[in-house]
Amino acid sequence: MRKLECSLVAQNLYDDPEFFAGYSQLRRSAQGLAGAPEWPAVRALLPDLTGKQVVDLGCGFGWFCRWARENGAAKIVGYDLSEKMLERARHDTEDEGIEYVKADLELLELSDQTFDFAYSSLALHYVAGFARLVKMVHQCLVPGARFVFTIEHPMYTAPVRPKWVRDADGRKSWPINQYAIEGTRVTNWFTEGVVKQHRMLGTTLNSLIDAGFTVRHVQEWSPTTDQLVEDPSLAAEMARPGFVIIAAER
Amino acid sequence: MRKLECSLVAQNLYDDPEFFAGYSQLRRSAQGLAGAPEWPAVRALLPDLTGKQVVDLGCGFGWFCRWARENGAAKIVGYDLSEKMLERARHDTEDEGIEYVKADLELLELSDQTFDFAYSSLALHYVAGFARLVKMVHQCLVPGARFVFTIEHPMYTAPVRPKWVRDADGRKSWPINQYAIEGTRVTNWFTEGVVKQHRMLGTTLNSLIDAGFTVRHVQEWSPTTDQLVEDPSLAAEMARPGFVIIAAER
Repeated sequence: MRKLECSLVAQNLYDDPEFFAGYSQLRRSAQGLAGAPEWPAVRALLPDLTGKQVVDLGCGFGWFCRWARENGAAKIVGYDLSEKMLERARHDTEDEGIEYVKADLELLELSDQTFDFAYSSLALHYVAGFARLVKMVHQCLVPGARFVFTIEHPMYTAPVRPKWVRDADGRKSWPINQYAIEGTRVTNWFTEGVVKQHRMLGTTLNSLIDAGFTVRHVQEWSPTTDQLVEDPSLAAEMARPGFVIIAAER
Repeated sequence: MRKLECSLVAQNLYDDPEFFAGYSQLRRSAQGLAGAPEWPAVRALLPDLTGKQVVDLGCGFGWFCRWARENGAAKIVGYDLSEKMLERARHDTEDEGIEYVKADLELLELSDQTFDFAYSSLALHYVAGFARLVKMVHQCLVPGARFVFTIEHPMYTAPVRPKWVRDADGRKSWPINQYAIEGTRVTNWFTEGVVKQHRMLGTTLNSLIDAGFTVRHVQEWSPTTDQLVEDPSLAAEMARPGFVIIAAER
């Protein structure tokens, strides 16, 4: 495995050939929203998109963009840093109401009050300038608009060595350490040197509040009983939720 | 050690002689607010109390009640289940503006819009009926009033076996498990059979939001550099914060 290069702007992880090949095999990549176990919980927090102008921050293969259009959105712009993901998104999309744009979320600027809904799925834990981004998202939304996003849970991103261990009773446990030490975490996920930004849940919420958002819902996602029966490997998410779903309102 | 008795209402933990003897030795019991390392962070979230009607849910020895009066509160009512704590609080207080009342937070009812500020320190993680309590607190506050409280962090309450372990590198780690399984946790703390209520942080916040509160600040408390120098044992709080401080507004 090669070591990924880091730059002053965002790491373009998803264009790394090794990473891209691995990531593309994930259920959520191959099957889209139906392959993402947290999707039903996310969907429950979405506003009615009929006639709405929507922005998707970190749109990846465009699964949500297409879903939003199928569910009434007038227009959706999906931003992503990865050329490869945008290429596949464009290939898989035939819809003039969807625009895919290459952008670095560390630098992206959007015009004031141009969107009725902002969405982001598992992208913002890569963003170092989270407070800046959140202020920009607040400004680009019209008053009353929602911002719904998912991130990796900070319990998941915190540890130096993010791997399950056994406690003294042999129980599968997730070893938390350096939770209050925020900033860069470098892990291996399909490739070496994947850079994430660890932030406490409180910090994420306070950034939203400081930007002017009202927090509407905070869900540390865990599977339903039906989901557990269908996929017993999700039991790990009961022990230590891996995702947080947040709904905020301008 | 005897096993504490549980009842249909709250466990009266603090009146257990063994527990009371141990708890009274804590710095926060002997020195009051100055002995609680999270107090400066809590204080920073308090509104100006001048002339305010204040309620303290789980007032213990009355340290905060006396502080509130010294800082301008017109009147403060401290509620607690423990006769022993209330007895000492009354003994240590000479102030007609402070009233101590025995109450079970599972059952307490307060009149509508009678308080300008509600406070609670490390008491609400004992309350099973948290959503009920929060609705009641919302009703008892005047519009615009704050509710500031601290609870044990759910990372602290979650595990079956809440004890530090060493990871494969020998690093002190806190083993998270059953985080998404909410409800009763029975642990040993000064005595056997201490009953706490584990709730995800998201659940705590959603209860506030559902009751009508606006979340103003969420702080997973960790020590300042000065505090770490003064008391190196607080480094554990960097690895896994033990408290959450929440400020909400009616």
